[in-house]
Amino acid sequence: MARFELRCSECALVFSEDPKLLVCPECSKHQARGRSLRGVLEVEILDGPARWPDEPLGSPDFLQQVLPLGDPSHLAPLPVGNTPLLDIPRLRRELEMPRLWLKDDSRNPSGSTKDRASLLVAAKAAEYGFETIATASTGNAATALAAVCAASGQRAVVLVPAEAPPAKLTQMLAYGAEVVPVDGSYDDAFELCMEACAEFGWYNRNTALNPFTLEGKKTLALEVARQLAPEIPDAVIVPTGDGVILGGFAKGFADLAAWGLIDRVPRLIAVQPQGASALVSALADGAEDVTPVPGAASIADSLVVEAPRNARSALRRIRESGGGGVTVSDEAIIGAIARLARLTGVFAEPAAAASLAGLEAALKAGLVDLDERVVLLVTGTGLKDRDAAARAVTMPSPIRPELGHLAERLGA
Amino acid sequence: MARFELRCSECALVFSEDPKLLVCPECSKHQARGRSLRGVLEVEILDGPARWPDEPLGSPDFLQQVLPLGDPSHLAPLPVGNTPLLDIPRLRRELEMPRLWLKDDSRNPSGSTKDRASLLVAAKAAEYGFETIATASTGNAATALAAVCAASGQRAVVLVPAEAPPAKLTQMLAYGAEVVPVDGSYDDAFELCMEACAEFGWYNRNTALNPFTLEGKKTLALEVARQLAPEIPDAVIVPTGDGVILGGFAKGFADLAAWGLIDRVPRLIAVQPQGASALVSALADGAEDVTPVPGAASIADSLVVEAPRNARSALRRIRESGGGGVTVSDEAIIGAIARLARLTGVFAEPAAAASLAGLEAALKAGLVDLDERVVLLVTGTGLKDRDAAARAVTMPSPIRPELGHLAERLGA
Repeated sequence: MARFELRCSECALVFSEDPKLLVCPECSKHQARGRSLRGVLEVEILDGPARWPDEPLGSPDFLQQVLPLGDPSHLAPLPVGNTPLLDIPRLRRELEMPRLWLKDDSRNPSGSTKDRASLLVAAKAAEYGFETIATASTGNAATALAAVCAASGQRAVVLVPAEAPPAKLTQMLAYGAEVVPVDGSYDDAFELCMEACAEFGWYNRNTALNPFTLEGKKTLALEVARQLAPEIPDAVIVPTGDGVILGGFAKGFADLAAWGLIDRVPRLIAVQPQGASALVSALADGAEDVTPVPGAASIADSLVVEAPRNARSALRRIRESGGGGVTVSDEAIIGAIARLARLTGVFAEPAAAASLAGLEAALKAGLVDLDERVVLLVTGTGLKDRDAAARAVTMPSPIRPELGHLAERLGA
Repeated sequence: MARFELRCSECALVFSEDPKLLVCPECSKHQARGRSLRGVLEVEILDGPARWPDEPLGSPDFLQQVLPLGDPSHLAPLPVGNTPLLDIPRLRRELEMPRLWLKDDSRNPSGSTKDRASLLVAAKAAEYGFETIATASTGNAATALAAVCAASGQRAVVLVPAEAPPAKLTQMLAYGAEVVPVDGSYDDAFELCMEACAEFGWYNRNTALNPFTLEGKKTLALEVARQLAPEIPDAVIVPTGDGVILGGFAKGFADLAAWGLIDRVPRLIAVQPQGASALVSALADGAEDVTPVPGAASIADSLVVEAPRNARSALRRIRESGGGGVTVSDEAIIGAIARLARLTGVFAEPAAAASLAGLEAALKAGLVDLDERVVLLVTGTGLKDRDAAARAVTMPSPIRPELGHLAERLGA
């Protein structure tokens, strides 16, 4: 069971574990409503493994060596992570990138990367004795929390934009979470969840705010590093909303370097939709914080964030890594859904397919070279958003079940 | 690379491998259109492993020891199988069944068990030099074939009822298959695919007809046996349409027994919807074949089959195992979607949730005891059919994002 402290990503103050501690009490004094978070805390593991654990990736025995778990028996009985890193020969040929891999995180239990964060947060909530866990979400984080809590028997309250894709809403309801759709944006739901947790004493899973969200997602990087060893990616392509998956990716590689298990870290390439690009804009402007984008919108609902909550830390991480950011149009995202599925057999939701669209933009921008080792992160399954996927394909009309009609249809 | 022959499941004639050989040439002389198949062939592995392979379940190195693969390099680069066998403490307590497990096959790449069959069939097609693979499907088999062929670069033609759930149609289109919706039933599509393959020289993946469909699905049983070892299930609960998943389950256990790796096999419990229950009716009637059910219908679209193609063999397998069959109402299936999701964190499509409804029916019928070791098979993800899942939940109305409204909504 790993010992740990919490370090402010801005002022570097260090804190001992405390169930009530979420962000840095000093830096968060300057917090304004509806802005990126000040004083996001990061976990510092004090006794990380000196060599690669032998245990299977994603197993409780593995997780207890690399995560800040008090008692691994609090982990919900739902296998999260240990998703495949795919060889994708056809996409490699098409892009002329012989060293391209795809990390298929759509194969998590609820169908998205968010399961990684929810698993750790729910275990910590159980350890701390909280009866209720709440989160704001564009959809996937809520669904992930609902799935984990269904397996563990914990109470989940989730606040989501009423406009979230119907499949996501249906899925989180099926898991038995208390789902509250809000007439408003994800950012509105985020603020409401802050107030509600303060008022009702719930444990707050809001991404970035809860330090175990970023920490849970770092397992992505540990897996990629293990699966690719002894190679290390030159760059990872990360669809980015709040910047916590990206932060988790960076944190995982940083931990491995600190533990002496790798000797360099990849460049981080953030991908955002043109309609919700606060973080990439700040990168371009050389700013240390984002300017929120009121009315942010994109077909990639999972990335529609006005004020990326982990912006300050994510911007630093990207710059330190020598990486960068790109924006992609909704049209490019829709095209990428079909292209990715046709060439890899991986069917991705818009936010996840943005990874491929982003790679192509990064190639054009010179942020990535064709012969580099690159990992595309696919964060969620295309089944989460049937309506978006329907825009990527053309539904053929039915035929009568007769051979002549079939021959005619196929030109056979 | 396992050597093998093909044995007729009815007359026991044995054949050498032949790309053109699907069903027994003798028994199939009595084949009538729109009826269950005569002379389904089963693979007989001649040099099965004498001890458990050390290789990871689902890996090419594992598969080449247990499947009739000529050259494992023909396997598509898409990890299929090796799905989790879940401890499900909350459902165990609710049902008072302390030795209940859930095999979560919804975590296959395209979201269903059908990926297992498609992976092997596509590899055999490549080995045999076929350029096109075709299949009829209620939806999942077509999607699975499309996904595997996207990864491998093979051509897939799929014939599906136009009424299949939209998410399935969208998904198979995204993978780039040539999708032909037919105005008719799955059984109509099945017959059309037979004619088309004969006419155009395509490789026919139709379930049961192609012996590698059943053989591919047997990996389910190998995994369950390995994951539960040294215990062996007393019974497995299998949602049943054509009877090929059930047949594959039986075949896997039979192979393990033949190889000396287990010393008994579980009882097979088939679950069918009340509106598509040809196989369970034949079991009750003591018949050796089914009477087709014209106009078969159920919310569990994956199980809507008028004339189960593998009926004759499946009926024998069930009887030999000491098992039985149950039917479940659409209402029970809908209830089971929510119950399963709420108590396990596994969100299942109707056909898959039928497993839980079927377990409860089997308990009532005395086919299963509370203290037995039982494995529930979940064959596909709930994200495949949003509309069905929507009937299992109540969508709450949105609130304004204000604390007072939230408190009121939750009675907090």
